[in-house]
Amino acid sequence: MEMLQGVMEFQKNLAKDHAQVVPISVFVAVLCLCVVVGHLLEENRWVNESITAIILGCLAGGVILAVSKGNSSHILTFNEELFFIYLLPPIIFNAGFQVKKKQFFQNFLTIMLFGVVGVFISASIITSGSWWLFPKVGFAGLNARDYLAIGTIFSSTDTVCTLQVLHQDETPLLYSLVFGEGVVNDATSVVLFNAIQKIDVTRLSALTPLNVIRDFLYLFLTSTALGITSGLLTALVLKTLCFGRHSTIREITLMVLMAYLSYMLAELFELSGILTVFFCGILMSHYAWHNVTYSARITTRQVQENNIGHATKFLIVKKHVFAMMSFIAETFIFLYVGMDALDIEKWKMSKLNMGTSLGICSTLILLISVARAAFVFPLSAFSNYMNRAHSERGSKITFKHMIIIWWAGLMRGAVSIALAFEQFTFYGVTSDPINATMITTTIIVVLFSTVVFGLLTTPLINYLLPHPTTANDIIRERRYDDAREDMTLPLLSLEESAATNILRAKESLSMLMEMPVYTIHSYWRKFDDAYMRPFFSGPRPVSEHSPA
Amino acid sequence: MEMLQGVMEFQKNLAKDHAQVVPISVFVAVLCLCVVVGHLLEENRWVNESITAIILGCLAGGVILAVSKGNSSHILTFNEELFFIYLLPPIIFNAGFQVKKKQFFQNFLTIMLFGVVGVFISASIITSGSWWLFPKVGFAGLNARDYLAIGTIFSSTDTVCTLQVLHQDETPLLYSLVFGEGVVNDATSVVLFNAIQKIDVTRLSALTPLNVIRDFLYLFLTSTALGITSGLLTALVLKTLCFGRHSTIREITLMVLMAYLSYMLAELFELSGILTVFFCGILMSHYAWHNVTYSARITTRQVQENNIGHATKFLIVKKHVFAMMSFIAETFIFLYVGMDALDIEKWKMSKLNMGTSLGICSTLILLISVARAAFVFPLSAFSNYMNRAHSERGSKITFKHMIIIWWAGLMRGAVSIALAFEQFTFYGVTSDPINATMITTTIIVVLFSTVVFGLLTTPLINYLLPHPTTANDIIRERRYDDAREDMTLPLLSLEESAATNILRAKESLSMLMEMPVYTIHSYWRKFDDAYMRPFFSGPRPVSEHSPA
Repeated sequence: MEMLQGVMEFQKNLAKDHAQVVPISVFVAVLCLCVVVGHLLEENRWVNESITAIILGCLAGGVILAVSKGNSSHILTFNEELFFIYLLPPIIFNAGFQVKKKQFFQNFLTIMLFGVVGVFISASIITSGSWWLFPKVGFAGLNARDYLAIGTIFSSTDTVCTLQVLHQDETPLLYSLVFGEGVVNDATSVVLFNAIQKIDVTRLSALTPLNVIRDFLYLFLTSTALGITSGLLTALVLKTLCFGRHSTIREITLMVLMAYLSYMLAELFELSGILTVFFCGILMSHYAWHNVTYSARITTRQVQENNIGHATKFLIVKKHVFAMMSFIAETFIFLYVGMDALDIEKWKMSKLNMGTSLGICSTLILLISVARAAFVFPLSAFSNYMNRAHSERGSKITFKHMIIIWWAGLMRGAVSIALAFEQFTFYGVTSDPINATMITTTIIVVLFSTVVFGLLTTPLINYLLPHPTTANDIIRERRYDDAREDMTLPLLSLEESAATNILRAKESLSMLMEMPVYTIHSYWRKFDDAYMRPFFSGPRPVSEHSPA
Repeated sequence: MEMLQGVMEFQKNLAKDHAQVVPISVFVAVLCLCVVVGHLLEENRWVNESITAIILGCLAGGVILAVSKGNSSHILTFNEELFFIYLLPPIIFNAGFQVKKKQFFQNFLTIMLFGVVGVFISASIITSGSWWLFPKVGFAGLNARDYLAIGTIFSSTDTVCTLQVLHQDETPLLYSLVFGEGVVNDATSVVLFNAIQKIDVTRLSALTPLNVIRDFLYLFLTSTALGITSGLLTALVLKTLCFGRHSTIREITLMVLMAYLSYMLAELFELSGILTVFFCGILMSHYAWHNVTYSARITTRQVQENNIGHATKFLIVKKHVFAMMSFIAETFIFLYVGMDALDIEKWKMSKLNMGTSLGICSTLILLISVARAAFVFPLSAFSNYMNRAHSERGSKITFKHMIIIWWAGLMRGAVSIALAFEQFTFYGVTSDPINATMITTTIIVVLFSTVVFGLLTTPLINYLLPHPTTANDIIRERRYDDAREDMTLPLLSLEESAATNILRAKESLSMLMEMPVYTIHSYWRKFDDAYMRPFFSGPRPVSEHSPA
């Protein structure tokens, strides 16, 4: 009897352990496969990491579906908390940390037009469009808040595909606009989504949009302020503590923890963690990172006089720590989206026939395209008009550029999925057929836009911005570019933040000549050099043209 | 009505979000504080990171206890799955990755004696001692399996304190023995613990110890084999895929994922994940890491002919990625241990008077000291006897060394806590007073040994191994050492694995002259150079004395 009990206890332990171990093992294995396949397909410029991850996720889901005899296709239930608490922060922090600050702030107004005003326009069009068209394709039962949420969910873009094709050196303006919009757009969507959650849908009035905008502005400003504060605080702590001493591991750990803390604090105060951690990333790469490398340089000089240059380069590379965390999180998300596409329970639950499903999806994809066109072209024209004073060759958005910007934002990604799960499920579970339909629809739209639009991106950009070289050259050159970027990009970012980079100055001299720095930006530079840098990033104020 | 529902839903969302956000925020904030305070106390050689984290954890627990009016002192329930699935793998992987392979394998036999045979001896003594003494101090109610588990729980050491004081350059043998024992000991404790879980305590016989040893050997060998296999597989994948191409982020990601996968697979097959991931780390730093740097070197050479040296150093630093993950996990664990010490529920539940508690704890601490002395001194003598052929100054363990080795293993750490939770709680919760007593006892022993023994480590070692310089010099020199280590350690590790390091050769020339490489080790080197390296780490076989 006691022996039997012992055996049962052992089996229970086994089941308990395996409950966590099996799914994690399978998931990590598929993640490995993803990295390897992504690497193998690197030379194929039609396919990118996102598409690979989604397709592999679908395949893995299919295998699991077959093995479990149609019971389940996914091994981890999608949890929007997992997404918002663990996966999103490293991605956004890395985006802020790696952003080319100079270009980002020079094009700040245009980026904000696209990323903020654009989302408002797009969300309004998608909301009203779906409100009008969904009943016509035979799908009813959503309430006002659902329609508002749909508008926001399908306004968040995923620009990974486009950024893999655009060249930073060839089209700096285009690259910075697409990248900047991608980041700001993510944040705006989430902030707007949260603002909409607070609307009292029973008392809609003419004032409601104004209230949403007021809430939005409040969230936007407070979140940004929190991010800037924590970034500066980190810089100050690092500067105060590390003067004359040196422990890189501890410093980087502190940066990671402080960035994460700012994200969590923003969530705690019901602000937008995305915006906070994005600005925290920018501030950290501007001030705090400089302290890390600076203190390293000091210590190194004391130790090995002849080795200073090496040590500096040495430490700058550690930026890659952040890039790696971001890379894993991104692959994880896309893999998950692919795996979740075959979630048989939600498909069974939605109870709609093929035709209606197809109708809803095509309606949404159509609305997405129209809504994006409706703001990209007018806002680009507006931006051109605003910049006409100093707009020569460099800063004018041509019609071809507009088409690329429009196309770049047609893909929908992980943020859409996460918001849809937050709106239409309770902890990833739903029993309502209408909610289940919206989840499956979102997954289809994301899959379709990422795979189909994503595959067409390369040919489209090659057609619109013809490369002067042959295809083989492009591939080879791109590989070189990547390698060179790997070598110089971290350097440039630091040197740029120290405003002392000769290399960069040479490269972009012609651009600088043609496009004078905006007044605001140049005032900021003066203020930064005179007061901010000396206080936050160590005792070495440098003027813009002094050598390194 | 509907409005009320809306408000309630909003409040529910708030509560739901905060349920995760508040504890994580507080925990991350305390973690930040820990890093900062640890940094400030760096010059104080009496206090180390572990002690800081434990004390800060206690303080934070006290504050939370006060704020929650005595209801709860911890914000995250200790979960041994969290520990074994997420926190332990990076620590052990990093240990394997950073281990000085040459010294580790040269002292392999001695390390195994301490780490494996020592744990068996120590566990037997602690088990029989507690079986005999616990009833005498008025504590009864444990069964045979509990006593066996106690033996294992209190045989796992924590050598962090000692390693922070010992100097790798001054006492290489001592350092490598203490470090090596620390790693092997962790693995042995966990493996032995799992082997004991499988004992059928109702049928104890003379064969039982033999069965345990058989199970142990099986686990040890299969786990090691799995680790070696996955390490080699990773090296092969990296070599095959990355030849001529280059994407460091992807390569490092793959290494991290493969190491983690090997750990999870070991857990899945009921093997020892610790051993697996430790050997996986060794193999990866020996072969796979070389591929990462090698492919980088190739690409770099294509891009910038004059920059080769830089690029190599450049990438080697990324080892720090692993060190950072390990650092966060370690701080996390010690912080948690400190916070858990004030867990008021368990204290209330244990229902023992002060005297009995004190009796149990002192008994255990006494047993730990005796059990450790019982194997350190005989096994050291045995090791000296075995090495008498080639033991001149370098490889003989002096009596002072024995005392330091004995002392180094008196501290108990996170593994003890995790094993105690696994044995005496169900998912971190227990309602049995005897189990609660064992948990609180374990926490007290860990706290006491880490803080008291830890604080005495520095004076003891300074007394036994007097430093030729003054106290001020020690501090300054140590800071220099740290910085130099930061500069050269990663380099040395790579160059060592390429067996081409001139710097190292110079430094340790005298040691090499006096202590000839063991026969096994030299055969292995020949085999490695002839077959393993060419196959697993790229097309550049190097002989031991060729220049870099």
